[in-house]
Amino acid sequence: MPQYNPPLRDMQFVLHELLDIGSVLKELPPHADTDADTINAVLEEGGKFAAEVLFPLNLSGDAEGCTLDKTTHEVTPPKGFKQAYAQYVEGGWPALSCDPEYGGQGLPHTVNQCFYEMLNSANQAWTMYPGLSHGAYEALHAHGTPEQKALYLPKLVSGEWTGTMCLTEPHCGTDLGMLRTKAEPQADGSYRITGQKIFISAGEHDMVPNIVHLVLARLPDAPAGSKGISLFIVPKFLVNADGSVGARNGIHCGALEHKMGIHANATCQMILDGAVGTLVGEPNKGLQAMFVMMNAARLGVGNQSLGLTEVAYQNAVAYAKDRLQMRALSGPKATDKPADPIIVHPDVRKMLLTARAFAEGGRALACYTALQLDIELNHPDEDARRAAADETALLTPIIKAFLTDNGWLATSHCMQVFGGHGFIHEWGMEQYVRDARINMIYEGTNTIQSLDLLGRKVLGDNGKKLKAFGRKIAEFVEEEGVREDMQEFINPLADLGDKVTKLTMEIGMKAMANPDEVGSAAVDYLRVVGHLTFAYFFARMARLALDKQGSGDPFYTAKLHTARFYFAKLLPETATLIRTARAGVAPLMAMDEALF
Amino acid sequence: MPQYNPPLRDMQFVLHELLDIGSVLKELPPHADTDADTINAVLEEGGKFAAEVLFPLNLSGDAEGCTLDKTTHEVTPPKGFKQAYAQYVEGGWPALSCDPEYGGQGLPHTVNQCFYEMLNSANQAWTMYPGLSHGAYEALHAHGTPEQKALYLPKLVSGEWTGTMCLTEPHCGTDLGMLRTKAEPQADGSYRITGQKIFISAGEHDMVPNIVHLVLARLPDAPAGSKGISLFIVPKFLVNADGSVGARNGIHCGALEHKMGIHANATCQMILDGAVGTLVGEPNKGLQAMFVMMNAARLGVGNQSLGLTEVAYQNAVAYAKDRLQMRALSGPKATDKPADPIIVHPDVRKMLLTARAFAEGGRALACYTALQLDIELNHPDEDARRAAADETALLTPIIKAFLTDNGWLATSHCMQVFGGHGFIHEWGMEQYVRDARINMIYEGTNTIQSLDLLGRKVLGDNGKKLKAFGRKIAEFVEEEGVREDMQEFINPLADLGDKVTKLTMEIGMKAMANPDEVGSAAVDYLRVVGHLTFAYFFARMARLALDKQGSGDPFYTAKLHTARFYFAKLLPETATLIRTARAGVAPLMAMDEALF
Repeated sequence: MPQYNPPLRDMQFVLHELLDIGSVLKELPPHADTDADTINAVLEEGGKFAAEVLFPLNLSGDAEGCTLDKTTHEVTPPKGFKQAYAQYVEGGWPALSCDPEYGGQGLPHTVNQCFYEMLNSANQAWTMYPGLSHGAYEALHAHGTPEQKALYLPKLVSGEWTGTMCLTEPHCGTDLGMLRTKAEPQADGSYRITGQKIFISAGEHDMVPNIVHLVLARLPDAPAGSKGISLFIVPKFLVNADGSVGARNGIHCGALEHKMGIHANATCQMILDGAVGTLVGEPNKGLQAMFVMMNAARLGVGNQSLGLTEVAYQNAVAYAKDRLQMRALSGPKATDKPADPIIVHPDVRKMLLTARAFAEGGRALACYTALQLDIELNHPDEDARRAAADETALLTPIIKAFLTDNGWLATSHCMQVFGGHGFIHEWGMEQYVRDARINMIYEGTNTIQSLDLLGRKVLGDNGKKLKAFGRKIAEFVEEEGVREDMQEFINPLADLGDKVTKLTMEIGMKAMANPDEVGSAAVDYLRVVGHLTFAYFFARMARLALDKQGSGDPFYTAKLHTARFYFAKLLPETATLIRTARAGVAPLMAMDEALF
Repeated sequence: MPQYNPPLRDMQFVLHELLDIGSVLKELPPHADTDADTINAVLEEGGKFAAEVLFPLNLSGDAEGCTLDKTTHEVTPPKGFKQAYAQYVEGGWPALSCDPEYGGQGLPHTVNQCFYEMLNSANQAWTMYPGLSHGAYEALHAHGTPEQKALYLPKLVSGEWTGTMCLTEPHCGTDLGMLRTKAEPQADGSYRITGQKIFISAGEHDMVPNIVHLVLARLPDAPAGSKGISLFIVPKFLVNADGSVGARNGIHCGALEHKMGIHANATCQMILDGAVGTLVGEPNKGLQAMFVMMNAARLGVGNQSLGLTEVAYQNAVAYAKDRLQMRALSGPKATDKPADPIIVHPDVRKMLLTARAFAEGGRALACYTALQLDIELNHPDEDARRAAADETALLTPIIKAFLTDNGWLATSHCMQVFGGHGFIHEWGMEQYVRDARINMIYEGTNTIQSLDLLGRKVLGDNGKKLKAFGRKIAEFVEEEGVREDMQEFINPLADLGDKVTKLTMEIGMKAMANPDEVGSAAVDYLRVVGHLTFAYFFARMARLALDKQGSGDPFYTAKLHTARFYFAKLLPETATLIRTARAGVAPLMAMDEALF
């Protein structure tokens, strides 16, 4: 049966040794007193909750799924989900990184990042219920009126209520400018909202007494396209001025989707029939307001796949050490047994190490970015805030797309380690693959992420953000390049940095003649830059590990081997990606549409 | 809703133009009279059966799955499956490529290859019921006694009964040498067989009155390991000497597996409790006898993914032409519509063309290999038979592993084209991904295939088989290298051929010092050689297409574009694979098992 052990040691390594989070937090007034012991204690407790409460519900939740009562429109998640959510609220977990003004604990986003990684490892489908709430919290915190904040934020922070994001409609997902849901202004300043939304995660369930839907809709006089979209709060039950719950609002779940994975999360078709809503932010500026939520959600989706990669790796390792099958090509290893454990086979190790390196590289990148987010939000110096914001903007699409593509590869490899048993539900591996698949799609497909990276974040500012990140790499290369034992990491890192610079300029030049060049190179380009970030963090981690080789702590030996594996067996993917990116647009666009 | 159109035009191109099947068959006495019209007519009818009878049952079959009556141990496949099977038998389809001596139609394997591709596109799970029968037919045809053949083959050929392969046990799949099922000789020459088998596809169902299980088991005095395994026929119902069905035998389905995909195929745990069996072939030579079946099955599994790649491609193209979302980066294309169809976006085209090229390249390779199999079985000249057998042996693991890995990539890309809708069952795309996943595992995992290729087929005979195939490529390169319009195909093909030669020698040298070098390079190596075969066939197809550019037939324009796409965007994968193969064993084996 599946197992999960929170990777606390690696998280501590990333936070304290790689990122020296203590020194960074000291400069951020709200977090100046958050010390290492506090962070470690929170993550230890969080890991226990994930492993002991959520993880046991993962396989059963997938098998059971959610059910919709077509008469009452009420949705029941799988057994145990409601109780686990009550424990989550009781433990104060929803408030972890929320604003103390609304009852939050005010811990750094970086801590929340690690906590959510563990929740996702334990049970992605369950974690989406509070995960979406947190997104709604962020959007309201940034754009709500003082009254809206007072009414809704404390309930979202405590977890008493949950939230959703209602964006997609049947005919539009990526292209929200086409959305049709209508909002009619009422005499009392409220709006009556009518339309249909689909793919609404956690859209309806019985875990809380009220659900706060954030809904994109169009005002009667709104301009066409994406500049005519406004954001509304549409609660499941109307909320009285004193915060008590009032009448049932005109929004309900019309159907549940039958999906490939995340069966235990209620993916709802939501019908709005004159539902009462209040405007969030300015009219026609709803998409910008929602983007606050979407950026957080994109980091969250990368984190989902990081969690799945870690848990899939752990289970595949356990199986590979236990399963006896064939002898090693280099001669029997477990001579007292009828066959060797399959971990003796090089390709089994390759599959395991791929997942391990994707998990460790992903954790370093995601924690680093979360810390930049903390700096962006709380550093007293404006330049420091701006620099951190630039990095967060640059790295967000990479985390979303690179980590979710990697998660798909990793979970599939880990499933393969199980042979035929990997295909069978009870072993748990095929569920990780199915759950991982949605992460490449929602919150902007990975193609959209790549266009965001290359088109907006890189070419859109003439490479300024990328150059700033590149300078950090160049400094590290300069500093460590003299160390003989670092050559194996520094040389390919420096080489890839040069190649990224050259590739970026080439695409930029070509794009001036034909904008489709951006679309044809973007997906390859994102993976190349993703590898650049992984190479940078693995080189930094290798440096730390090299310095500790005398410590006798096997953690550092394993870290060094994993870094070497990454450079030898995963980084070379860039050789292909750079070629195919450079091959340009003609092989894609030359064929007439009719010939497909 | 999903759709499927049999790709008859491309099949005809491959069979008649690329392979000139008519000339080849003329030299094979049993097929000398099989002309193009016959082949085309059979495939047209077969395509109708696939598209009209099987395809409509695919999505419903996946949703419904199979059910086991725990009292009677009877299994009921999804609605419509039994009726479709009856139509299949009535149409004479099971007999297509079977021996006329037992009622077969004696058509070439190459025709069966194309027919089965269409069945797999339409409904992989259904197709496995007759597919496994065909494997049992092949094993009995090669190794059965005259009495066994007379008793069982006509029923398998007509489809009146179906067959299975019972190999795997809970503790052994890859390593069949460990199997424990026992066969006790009886006074009457029969055997009583006891044990447990798992993962038995089509192991139990109600579509036919009897099921012929081929079971691997161990005789009491058998040597340990794989040299002590014998093969037995164990029918569900005992068969009287006159061919009539007798008493229920002691073999039954104990449970059905809950799987990621192929839900509509009954994957059974089979309990043998003193079941009566008869020996097939010699005692302790069962694994060799079963290998006949397994080689055919491996080609069949590659063909399953070819079928899924084709049908996923067709549906993704239809969606990409229909779905309106965003404008082209290079400016609006469908100015009369609220947005452009998503096929205007370069990355959508890249995903589509990847699937298309994998389908067309796979079809060429699979048909070519099937024709070699026909030559191997029926050419009057022994040298010609041996040369063809060598090619079949070389290409079988490539077809199994390369086509199934490609199928996984392709179906996932095609699902991605659908965005969020791809994740929803009713669109049919996520089923293709789930069904495609098992093909990388069963009939020998793709790692096992790669070891078979590199260890046995290439290094095992000092590269003789590979060199023979390489000579065909070199001849083509020599012949076409003077054509200016062929340079874009010939140069990379010749280059890759040289690299494969060099890589093979390098690995061979390293393997002499450390056999684990084979295991560490094999998976990358197989994909490199897979690309070499695709590059060869795409170059040949491009040559034919170039010669027909004046014909006005858009088929040849599309073929040329697809070949160009393949060379520009897919073949460069070899750049990475060669690097990672050359990086060798240390990055995989250096880390101590305990550190994982």
